[in-house]
Amino acid sequence: MRIMTSYLRVQKPLPFINFKSITRAFSVAATKSPPSKAIIYSTHGEPNAVTKLVSVPGIEVKENEVCVKMLAAPINPSDINRIQGVYPVRPEPPAVGGYEGVGEVYSVGSAVHSFSPGDWVIPSPPSFGTWQTYIVEDHNVWHKVDKGVPMEYAATITVNPLTALLMLEDCITLNSGDTIVQNGATSMVGQCVIQIAKSRGIRNINIIRDSANPSPGRAGVDEVKERLKNLGADEVFTENELEVKNVKSLLGDIPEPVLGFNCVGGNAASLVLKFLRHGGTMVTYGGMSKKPVTVSTSSFIFKELSLRGFWLQKWLGKDKAEESRGMIDRLLALVKDGKLKYKMELAPFEDFNTALDKALGKHGSQPKQVIKF
Amino acid sequence: MRIMTSYLRVQKPLPFINFKSITRAFSVAATKSPPSKAIIYSTHGEPNAVTKLVSVPGIEVKENEVCVKMLAAPINPSDINRIQGVYPVRPEPPAVGGYEGVGEVYSVGSAVHSFSPGDWVIPSPPSFGTWQTYIVEDHNVWHKVDKGVPMEYAATITVNPLTALLMLEDCITLNSGDTIVQNGATSMVGQCVIQIAKSRGIRNINIIRDSANPSPGRAGVDEVKERLKNLGADEVFTENELEVKNVKSLLGDIPEPVLGFNCVGGNAASLVLKFLRHGGTMVTYGGMSKKPVTVSTSSFIFKELSLRGFWLQKWLGKDKAEESRGMIDRLLALVKDGKLKYKMELAPFEDFNTALDKALGKHGSQPKQVIKF
Repeated sequence: MRIMTSYLRVQKPLPFINFKSITRAFSVAATKSPPSKAIIYSTHGEPNAVTKLVSVPGIEVKENEVCVKMLAAPINPSDINRIQGVYPVRPEPPAVGGYEGVGEVYSVGSAVHSFSPGDWVIPSPPSFGTWQTYIVEDHNVWHKVDKGVPMEYAATITVNPLTALLMLEDCITLNSGDTIVQNGATSMVGQCVIQIAKSRGIRNINIIRDSANPSPGRAGVDEVKERLKNLGADEVFTENELEVKNVKSLLGDIPEPVLGFNCVGGNAASLVLKFLRHGGTMVTYGGMSKKPVTVSTSSFIFKELSLRGFWLQKWLGKDKAEESRGMIDRLLALVKDGKLKYKMELAPFEDFNTALDKALGKHGSQPKQVIKF
Repeated sequence: MRIMTSYLRVQKPLPFINFKSITRAFSVAATKSPPSKAIIYSTHGEPNAVTKLVSVPGIEVKENEVCVKMLAAPINPSDINRIQGVYPVRPEPPAVGGYEGVGEVYSVGSAVHSFSPGDWVIPSPPSFGTWQTYIVEDHNVWHKVDKGVPMEYAATITVNPLTALLMLEDCITLNSGDTIVQNGATSMVGQCVIQIAKSRGIRNINIIRDSANPSPGRAGVDEVKERLKNLGADEVFTENELEVKNVKSLLGDIPEPVLGFNCVGGNAASLVLKFLRHGGTMVTYGGMSKKPVTVSTSSFIFKELSLRGFWLQKWLGKDKAEESRGMIDRLLALVKDGKLKYKMELAPFEDFNTALDKALGKHGSQPKQVIKF
């Protein structure tokens, strides 16, 4: 249960009675971390209302621990859901926000030899509480990453790109020349799916929202299609464009998809199912429309479709730390080679509230918000 | 494609121009089958309207063929759907109705040594065209069965009981002590699931329709529950009884089900999903309510449920003839031991139209109709 330990640890500096920190205050003086600033929430609720910036005093860095000065951490939808209290696995408040990010090693405990000050590290598997300027955690929590990639990529490489990579590799065996179909193609996972599929020779069909009622600031359909095709999309359709009797007639010489990804639900999920070939699989990893997935009986019986879900946090909980670190290194190598990119906006820590509003969709469609500490 | 060959063969005696039978008329005289009576349909449509009884002349029994005098054959829902033209794999009319049944060997071709007159045989895998009094087919089509079971069981052992057995054995690995949940528990597959599960030490939770608006002749809820419990049901609930916040509170000491079977769709499918444990699988094999299956996003992601379908005809098409014959023998052994029973009504062939009406639901809920030739 390292995640929970991690959570307890990040709570320690908060001004609540904590017997462990009282005990520590009487122990022999050791290297201390610098004072930290953290975004915390003391109760579940709407993130604008319940989050606040607090100062926390430095704590002892014990012999097996590493003190990391955080460089950047994103605001992911799941971070928001955890603050709202609607995510099934979440720290109990009071808690520090955030789940992934990248930092620079500031100091190491006396028994730590695998890290040196200046190294870039990410919590891997991710840990609760990355929205703070200094974190002290056991050396096992940290995974050293290549400093040759932009910090915002190192900060965001786990939650979304790793989901995309795992869905392409862990659900069914895909071969070069196979086809996948996905909705929500402009999402960060969607963009990663396109590029990773492209790098593996896998054809990809993409479904995006219609241009009707575009969000303020949302790019036009043609521009979105162009952007996704530049990433490696074979085909991009709006939901409206798929209101035809036989969507497969639109595939041309592209083979029928064997695998589909759904992060929207409702009609957008039905469109993924329509594209799938006999015996195909649809993996649900999100539900942006808040509508359920509806499947006809004949899809199951006569078309032999299979439906399942994917949840990174659960996968990581299956003793996958080592495997996930190898995959993260592969993803960062793709970033370094220019084969994996996605839109982000770096937001100074002091502008956290604005970044949060953007992440909450209060300013229309916006790039992924990444806090720069 | 033995099934299609079989279909072509049963068409041969029909009074349409058929070059092969013309050719045969000039070949050397051989043993002929007796004249036969058959229920045929010359076009797709409502079964009452399009089926008719015809007489067909006897045909030559070639050296590798077996002439079978049919004893009994059921009217299954899929037979009706084939006549209606709404089943995805079906013979093109004109065709003889029926897909499974049992017969007695009447005569064998000169090269056939594995069967003798008087043997009971079933077409295995099933073949189109069992609603006729004599069938001549290659010896490979036939599987000899134990004459120690009632003919109506031998006639019906494939389509429904084999589906139940395969769903319990082929979807996931079930161990003694595991639990399954199913809706449509009074269906023939449902009754078989209960008894086969019972014989393997698998707990079973059953969902039946509500007593509101019962069909004429439909037994009361208490009577149905009693009957299913006598077959081996651990629990039986009506859909209304499951309108509670947490259906699992009704399970007592029964473990949460790992596998669910759905042959209804709509709310009855949602109830199966509610019962399933984390990571469970729901297999859809029918859609009696004609409503689709609706699944929340969180069921896929956070509860990690998997959904798939099962279709016997497809499974049999995967070169499973030998395997299926072994399973049929196991099922008939259960019948012989009194461990597998289900309600049927034998209908004389001359009363086919009444039996068809009953199978079509025109007289309320009725036992499975089995034509006795």
